[in-house]
Amino acid sequence: MSSAEGRDRAPCVFCEIVAHRSPAYVLYEDADTMAILDIFPFTRGHFLVIPKGHHERLTEMPEGDQVALVRTLDRMLRRVQRLAPDYNLALNAGRAAGQIVFHVHFHVIPRYGEANPFQSRHRVPIEEKEASAVVAELSPS
Amino acid sequence: MSSAEGRDRAPCVFCEIVAHRSPAYVLYEDADTMAILDIFPFTRGHFLVIPKGHHERLTEMPEGDQVALVRTLDRMLRRVQRLAPDYNLALNAGRAAGQIVFHVHFHVIPRYGEANPFQSRHRVPIEEKEASAVVAELSPS
Repeated sequence: MSSAEGRDRAPCVFCEIVAHRSPAYVLYEDADTMAILDIFPFTRGHFLVIPKGHHERLTEMPEGDQVALVRTLDRMLRRVQRLAPDYNLALNAGRAAGQIVFHVHFHVIPRYGEANPFQSRHRVPIEEKEASAVVAELSPS
Repeated sequence: MSSAEGRDRAPCVFCEIVAHRSPAYVLYEDADTMAILDIFPFTRGHFLVIPKGHHERLTEMPEGDQVALVRTLDRMLRRVQRLAPDYNLALNAGRAAGQIVFHVHFHVIPRYGEANPFQSRHRVPIEEKEASAVVAELSPS
């Protein structure tokens, strides 16, 4: 995590969460990865799967870290089906692709029949009560 | 590939490509995976990475097949940066998430600064000359 300082010299927000210096709604954590709620969800239950190591791009990650990330994705995709059978999995690489935090993260977005929930201007922060309910539903039973 | 018959009893279009019974613009192939052009590209160079085995969902794939898929994704994401530095990587699981072919596939969509290229109704089939040019650019140099 030597390159955890972002391009604007602010600390990387995901590295701060990984280090437990910033709060997050944590769904899963192991030695290499975390799953946390997106606090501006496109749909109910929208969460992120991230590696603990700081890399901007998937292609910059060591192969072992990529495998750990896929293992956590698999685990969390099984859980998301508690909320909805269908979902989008997406990774945005680079500013022109909509990447905002420059630390690798996969979005997992449950789909409930919306035509197009990806309306950035409609995103509002999740409320704590709702976040706690979603965390409970996506936690190990 | 025992479940290669689709829900409509038509053969799975990706299994037909894997078996070399249907044509495709192939960018990469190994024992477990393939990368092929999306013939209705959202942007120039839009391609798909698929496992050879037939599974509807990533979570139905054996772990070894998931790892092979990630290895091919990594390889192909390095190549896509020849076209554009930025890209979206997306997997749609289920009809409500926009999955059309029920055989696991990751979309890789180079981004050139379009605000939102994901307009399904504007998709037109790629022309052969353009497809050949893209294949050449994304082939091993």
